[in-house]
Amino acid sequence: MNETRDILEKLSRGEITVDKALKALKKEPFCDIDFAKIDTHRAIRKGVGEVIYGEGKTAKQIEDIVSAMLKSGQDRILVTRLSEEKYKEIANNGLIAYDPTSRTGVVGGNRPADGLGKIVVAAAGTSDIYCAEEAARTAEFLGNEVTRLYDVGVAGLHRLLSRLDELMSASVVIVAAGMEGALVSVIGGLVDCPVIALPTSVGYGASYEGVAALLAMLNSCASGVGVVNIDNGFGAGYLASSINHMEKRI
Amino acid sequence: MNETRDILEKLSRGEITVDKALKALKKEPFCDIDFAKIDTHRAIRKGVGEVIYGEGKTAKQIEDIVSAMLKSGQDRILVTRLSEEKYKEIANNGLIAYDPTSRTGVVGGNRPADGLGKIVVAAAGTSDIYCAEEAARTAEFLGNEVTRLYDVGVAGLHRLLSRLDELMSASVVIVAAGMEGALVSVIGGLVDCPVIALPTSVGYGASYEGVAALLAMLNSCASGVGVVNIDNGFGAGYLASSINHMEKRI
Amino acid sequence: MNETRDILEKLSRGEITVDKALKALKKEPFCDIDFAKIDTHRAIRKGVGEVIYGEGKTAKQIEDIVSAMLKSGQDRILVTRLSEEKYKEIANNGLIAYDPTSRTGVVGGNRPADGLGKIVVAAAGTSDIYCAEEAARTAEFLGNEVTRLYDVGVAGLHRLLSRLDELMSASVVIVAAGMEGALVSVIGGLVDCPVIALPTSVGYGASYEGVAALLAMLNSCASGVGVVNIDNGFGAGYLASSINHMEKRI
Amino acid sequence: MNETRDILEKLSRGEITVDKALKALKKEPFCDIDFAKIDTHRAIRKGVGEVIYGEGKTAKQIEDIVSAMLKSGQDRILVTRLSEEKYKEIANNGLIAYDPTSRTGVVGGNRPADGLGKIVVAAAGTSDIYCAEEAARTAEFLGNEVTRLYDVGVAGLHRLLSRLDELMSASVVIVAAGMEGALVSVIGGLVDCPVIALPTSVGYGASYEGVAALLAMLNSCASGVGVVNIDNGFGAGYLASSINHMEKRI
Amino acid sequence: MNETRDILEKLSRGEITVDKALKALKKEPFCDIDFAKIDTHRAIRKGVGEVIYGEGKTAKQIEDIVSAMLKSGQDRILVTRLSEEKYKEIANNGLIAYDPTSRTGVVGGNRPADGLGKIVVAAAGTSDIYCAEEAARTAEFLGNEVTRLYDVGVAGLHRLLSRLDELMSASVVIVAAGMEGALVSVIGGLVDCPVIALPTSVGYGASYEGVAALLAMLNSCASGVGVVNIDNGFGAGYLASSINHMEKRI
Amino acid sequence: MNETRDILEKLSRGEITVDKALKALKKEPFCDIDFAKIDTHRAIRKGVGEVIYGEGKTAKQIEDIVSAMLKSGQDRILVTRLSEEKYKEIANNGLIAYDPTSRTGVVGGNRPADGLGKIVVAAAGTSDIYCAEEAARTAEFLGNEVTRLYDVGVAGLHRLLSRLDELMSASVVIVAAGMEGALVSVIGGLVDCPVIALPTSVGYGASYEGVAALLAMLNSCASGVGVVNIDNGFGAGYLASSINHMEKRI
Amino acid sequence: MNETRDILEKLSRGEITVDKALKALKKEPFCDIDFAKIDTHRAIRKGVGEVIYGEGKTAKQIEDIVSAMLKSGQDRILVTRLSEEKYKEIANNGLIAYDPTSRTGVVGGNRPADGLGKIVVAAAGTSDIYCAEEAARTAEFLGNEVTRLYDVGVAGLHRLLSRLDELMSASVVIVAAGMEGALVSVIGGLVDCPVIALPTSVGYGASYEGVAALLAMLNSCASGVGVVNIDNGFGAGYLASSINHMEKRI
Amino acid sequence: MNETRDILEKLSRGEITVDKALKALKKEPFCDIDFAKIDTHRAIRKGVGEVIYGEGKTAKQIEDIVSAMLKSGQDRILVTRLSEEKYKEIANNGLIAYDPTSRTGVVGGNRPADGLGKIVVAAAGTSDIYCAEEAARTAEFLGNEVTRLYDVGVAGLHRLLSRLDELMSASVVIVAAGMEGALVSVIGGLVDCPVIALPTSVGYGASYEGVAALLAMLNSCASGVGVVNIDNGFGAGYLASSINHMEKRI
Repeated sequence: MNETRDILEKLSRGEITVDKALKALKKEPFCDIDFAKIDTHRAIRKGVGEVIYGEGKTAKQIEDIVSAMLKSGQDRILVTRLSEEKYKEIANNGLIAYDPTSRTGVVGGNRPADGLGKIVVAAAGTSDIYCAEEAARTAEFLGNEVTRLYDVGVAGLHRLLSRLDELMSASVVIVAAGMEGALVSVIGGLVDCPVIALPTSVGYGASYEGVAALLAMLNSCASGVGVVNIDNGFGAGYLASSINHMEKRI
Repeated sequence: MNETRDILEKLSRGEITVDKALKALKKEPFCDIDFAKIDTHRAIRKGVGEVIYGEGKTAKQIEDIVSAMLKSGQDRILVTRLSEEKYKEIANNGLIAYDPTSRTGVVGGNRPADGLGKIVVAAAGTSDIYCAEEAARTAEFLGNEVTRLYDVGVAGLHRLLSRLDELMSASVVIVAAGMEGALVSVIGGLVDCPVIALPTSVGYGASYEGVAALLAMLNSCASGVGVVNIDNGFGAGYLASSINHMEKRI
Repeated sequence: MNETRDILEKLSRGEITVDKALKALKKEPFCDIDFAKIDTHRAIRKGVGEVIYGEGKTAKQIEDIVSAMLKSGQDRILVTRLSEEKYKEIANNGLIAYDPTSRTGVVGGNRPADGLGKIVVAAAGTSDIYCAEEAARTAEFLGNEVTRLYDVGVAGLHRLLSRLDELMSASVVIVAAGMEGALVSVIGGLVDCPVIALPTSVGYGASYEGVAALLAMLNSCASGVGVVNIDNGFGAGYLASSINHMEKRI
Repeated sequence: MNETRDILEKLSRGEITVDKALKALKKEPFCDIDFAKIDTHRAIRKGVGEVIYGEGKTAKQIEDIVSAMLKSGQDRILVTRLSEEKYKEIANNGLIAYDPTSRTGVVGGNRPADGLGKIVVAAAGTSDIYCAEEAARTAEFLGNEVTRLYDVGVAGLHRLLSRLDELMSASVVIVAAGMEGALVSVIGGLVDCPVIALPTSVGYGASYEGVAALLAMLNSCASGVGVVNIDNGFGAGYLASSINHMEKRI
Repeated sequence: MNETRDILEKLSRGEITVDKALKALKKEPFCDIDFAKIDTHRAIRKGVGEVIYGEGKTAKQIEDIVSAMLKSGQDRILVTRLSEEKYKEIANNGLIAYDPTSRTGVVGGNRPADGLGKIVVAAAGTSDIYCAEEAARTAEFLGNEVTRLYDVGVAGLHRLLSRLDELMSASVVIVAAGMEGALVSVIGGLVDCPVIALPTSVGYGASYEGVAALLAMLNSCASGVGVVNIDNGFGAGYLASSINHMEKRI
Repeated sequence: MNETRDILEKLSRGEITVDKALKALKKEPFCDIDFAKIDTHRAIRKGVGEVIYGEGKTAKQIEDIVSAMLKSGQDRILVTRLSEEKYKEIANNGLIAYDPTSRTGVVGGNRPADGLGKIVVAAAGTSDIYCAEEAARTAEFLGNEVTRLYDVGVAGLHRLLSRLDELMSASVVIVAAGMEGALVSVIGGLVDCPVIALPTSVGYGASYEGVAALLAMLNSCASGVGVVNIDNGFGAGYLASSINHMEKRI
Repeated sequence: MNETRDILEKLSRGEITVDKALKALKKEPFCDIDFAKIDTHRAIRKGVGEVIYGEGKTAKQIEDIVSAMLKSGQDRILVTRLSEEKYKEIANNGLIAYDPTSRTGVVGGNRPADGLGKIVVAAAGTSDIYCAEEAARTAEFLGNEVTRLYDVGVAGLHRLLSRLDELMSASVVIVAAGMEGALVSVIGGLVDCPVIALPTSVGYGASYEGVAALLAMLNSCASGVGVVNIDNGFGAGYLASSINHMEKRI
Repeated sequence: MNETRDILEKLSRGEITVDKALKALKKEPFCDIDFAKIDTHRAIRKGVGEVIYGEGKTAKQIEDIVSAMLKSGQDRILVTRLSEEKYKEIANNGLIAYDPTSRTGVVGGNRPADGLGKIVVAAAGTSDIYCAEEAARTAEFLGNEVTRLYDVGVAGLHRLLSRLDELMSASVVIVAAGMEGALVSVIGGLVDCPVIALPTSVGYGASYEGVAALLAMLNSCASGVGVVNIDNGFGAGYLASSINHMEKRI
């Protein structure tokens, strides 16, 4: 479930040497590449591959960070908020599996799915999909099987109810919605697993770029809901994966 | 449907004299009683009985306005935002049918129900009832039959769906909800009649005394929804009645 | 109710597993819901014609949706928020009757006007017309006769009062206004029919793109007013049409 | 200018220290300012009479300030925001002409009215009178004739229009309104004199204690409007008086 | 009053229908209003010259309005919010005296200055001048002599104080300031004439495009201040002119 | 882990009869007791005991709901937002284990702890404990072992770091903090389990009753954080328990 | 670095489990931190004396904390936000030098003044003094000489300018102001030392309990200004003392 | 420490003549260059070189101001908010040492570092560097030695703690952070010197362009923190320099 644990288990079973383990764990807690520190120790603590937040970085900077990571032994990398323009500017972008809808790119493929169950990502409208996909692809990168339920907004309740089976067998549900964000409360009332509310900036007028949805989700009358920042698809996917990889700790 | 019209029709059929009609219509467009003008002309234009907004008026002032109205021939009066304390202070409060939940009082009884259909008043939680009842009793005062669907919030969707028949045969639906206000979108997606969204100040934390519900309702993904002010049960009931008394005008 | 017993008996007889029983129990409250009814109902309502929200869709996507709808037998289509650029990009746009002011396009013509009366659309200033026209054309598409009263803002009251006849014989009035939104209260005080308040994002400085108008409309001292989202001309037109097509339901 | 040279020469002659020179240089730009002028000026202006803001002061403190003023020859004093409780606690309150509605008290009577014309104070509803009266009594204290037009809110436009003559002959109009504050725009469109907009904290729900009215007034489509703070009746009366006492200055 | 009887008598004699009577009664309160008076009045007031708000109008539209006005005998016209681009697009723009800083254009020259005294326009910083100039040029157009005091912000108090004489002899002062808007309070404490506070959208971060300045001005501790909307230079100039043209009305 | 599952497993093992199981599951999906519907079906779906939100309910109403629940076979009940005054007014309050800090009461004791690991509840300051305790006691009621780390705010970082062991072995961490809410980001960067951010309304001035903390938590630079409403200790505890009871679903 | 190898070697020798190794690796980056240094450091800093924030603590709790501190050798204690009621309830309050204006109490006297210079505390109005005094007494407690300049608001500029000497010789200036907070910019433009802006919640209407002042101070056109939270007199005094005790560090 | 003092000391030691000193101090308190007054007296009062705020000024205007300053004897100039485009447009830009990250340019070099100690500038993330550098370069221009600690955000606490020595020996710390701004509280709890909190507009969704960080910083639980406006790197650097140049004044 956890790459660090994998290395340690191999070591304890004598399958790798201490030196190899040490190299895999990377000796320095973080290495400078001028404009960005890459925190290799975080990988140990968090047990996941590294992620690059592409917003505000140039194509060249992203390219350099990716190279440095690959060199230091990191074999799976997720780049988020990567615009199509930047993606095309990156030399050797053949390494990157790019998805324009979610504006994410993956190097080295997804980690094999090994969670407790499936993560369902529901989106209220078609215009929320950009954000739902960021969540879905993040979760897949982190080793989760994902079921997508798109365009199941509450104004057409029968569409949602026709997918009850998938919803109710989910291990975690992520709900992406803009405008009035009502889908969270409806799904939260139907399922018994944790629900992650993901407000999107979809809407106009008094939606205030996601504020209406955010407030609705924080005030949801359903129990068992945790909310992330507006348009934070990555955060929703990460939290869902973290929940879907729970294990006995006692 | 309209008291003014009734008078005119009686006159045109010769059932009353011009003098009597004139008296019934009240000659002066408004009469001063010192602290509050009573607009008798509004009754003509709006075709409804008079309403006293009790907030910020003393028991004595309310008493005086009621007396003045009765004297000038107004036989049905609705008092809103009338606290139980004030109600008890009013001399001769025996005239007033008082309801502590909605803090409304009615003098002279409700106008007989003569609308196009039933008005359904739905409330998301038990704590929204104070406001839903203000709407319901206002609508009844103005001559409407009202069906109440209380505690049908979206977190327990099956409760709402078990009342589908009543919802779908409504002529207008008023939806009172605080917190995240999601009930409006769900009902708005189920019915084909006009929906009046009534945000309540119920909630805590980031509900901001009704703001979260108000924003949600303004941004509802369902079509055919008109929103009134937070806690404005009277306004919702009045608008619903106005819609329920539509007639051919061409 | 009996279904629960059925499930339990199957379980006790070993015919189903605990997991299957658990899932069946969770879904039970939704088993009796007549989804057909919801769907049929929707189909009936949608008889008014289908609507495409053009914002955030490419010209190609809109073109494809229109084609698919026509193929499936939908013969009247309204496209809203359709910019002139996109309209021009659509192949065969000859099918679409386009209006650049309201940014709406109609395929297959308007439904014949068959409402209870006329809908009056009033706009405070010339700069509110974009939004008033969205409302007006939506109402016409849905089968309503519409009277336009433009540039009747309250700072030139005589202009408004010179149109009293048209206002007072309306069956529904939509009031589009930005800036301080005062027109709603003035008209709401004059007419006895339902008033739909449509705040526009017109203004500058402390108008906050429609917030000043929105708040003014929610707080209107006139009764019988329902408010829609800022710039939601479509919503105003839809609600007005829904009210103008009321019929006896008892 | 020459002073700088003086300072430097003194320093070069060793008559002052560097520290003293530094401080003298810092203060220099303020040396030529005629503070006497500011002060005298103030005295002249204050000829209009002194004002005590009662909020947050104890009855004893107000009593002491009044006594000190009288002793120093000030013979007219206005106390604002003076609650009835405090008024009663003040010893010798017989000196004070107190008005509970506006919570103002006057010592020594009003200055004789000597303005250019009449100040009209209009209030939208009966609940705005507390604030309108603070403005009216402030203006009277400062030597103005005041006409009161109360309960002339726009939802009953005929009431306002029946007072057109008084409005149109005003020299300044103060408009007190809460809720949606629409009265300012209507009056601003009718008169040709300066209009002072006075938002009150009257209302509930989305009126946000005067914010809706304040925003409406700032965005008024009528020209010639200046706005004061919410509930600042004193400020409105003071500004109106200042305008009503304009005189030729060339 | 007698009209009501007339209507009723006609109805009782069968000369009009109930519907016609109802409509006549609704309109009655507005029958006696002297619209001629409102209109004439307006014409008189508009003697000051007509104003075109250029924002949101095309060069062609402005051109057409100007032509129509000139044809109808209006010989002085002010165009505000006229960008340099639009100005250049207007055919025959030789008629327009254009100022790029304030984005205003004047046709037919300013009205001769005939006010009570001078209007001082003070601006806190050089970046507030765009807005101060809109106010100054509006006032000049409307027949006022204007003194400009620019770059006199409170952080360099000696600059302001060196202009005390001009400030203190003003008949009205307009204060344009962004950021923290403190200049209004300082000037308001120095002068005894009306002060018009004009918040500008200058600043960054927590200035929120003029909100900080607007709030500061509304809360000014100086008396005699009226505030206009953010960046509303025209409104400030208009109000100042209106005050500077006060005359005896009794 | 799940009461419903327990019942079903007993039934499948033949330890109880179908009738007994049916009774335990309660036949009716919800039962009215006048003012509040008790949703017994929710227990099935959500798999937890029932919870009463005490705010806005009278002592008598709470008493009645508790009685009704006990009668219908619900043996564990949690009452939240139960003020000490109300608690004392409840007859037979001996049934309730009451905690004044968190204002919670438990009937029938907590469910035995059977989660995956321990839930750590961290509170930044002593004034956040009221809310942290609501979360902690909710989690204990729902069958979780809870470790409390109180007064570990970031201004005294060594206190927090001295508890690293407990933090790092947690299965879920709830972080309650008011003021600037920084503790969430610090803890979120240290642990690899899901973190639930619980903003409290502690603070003054620009903390705006929890808004500063809420915004900080939504914007946390740490991954794997879900946020609940301000002061929603119950919601945080519920979500934590839901995560701590995850199980394999594939 | 070597520790990682140690852990891995122990694991490879089977001396520790994988779980233990994992946890050890997670904690590693914090192993070298010299917590003793943080603590000692803190002790040194706290040599300035300990502070108790009285808000939300009972008289008994404060009493107990004071006793515990005294017992542990702390001889100077400052209690802030100590209401007069609580102060009176504290047994042995004879130990506490209490000041009701600032609601502060001091045990053991102030530290002798040993700063670089004097701290000037300026307050705009008399109603800001409560907060200015909290700052002044905090500074005095921490060993600073304090000069108070009260009631020097900008609306009476000559009062402020008459104190130029004291202002210009200050080592730090704290400016307490509510309403429009303009005093900060004026003083910030006059002095060359650091200025601490302390917004107070004084005002009404659109002052929003200190927001207008806070925004004004953040946007001050004067350089060298740092802002603290609304009403945070303690914070202002603490920061001023910290600046006034600067010393050479190179 | 102070250029004015230097001149005076030279004069007092007879190293320069009064005339030369006078010229150096510039005789006129401010000189106009058409669009901008240059306040030479400020240099005396504030004791620092002059700064040009480049935002909203054209390249030509900046060029002219620089020339005028150089001519009047000002030999060190800092230009802030100078975009790379404008920098390139300036003729003779060879005079300007330009830094694109902070968008600052320096003419005449930095003043020699002569502060009490080092100023540490800490930045939470790489995207906050633009703002941190504006602060750092401003401080360097004003004569301070600066240590940069970048990318030390709290989500990777070990990075920050590995720099404890540098932090703890600082004389002032500036903390630049966007998103949740937590770094201020953590550093504020570690150091005993003044901390200047510099919120940046970095973030998305509910960060509201720096509001979340600003609120967090104002509510910091650490003492000794002063906050500047969002993105006001110059202000932070200026205040830090002012503190770092404190001297004995008694």
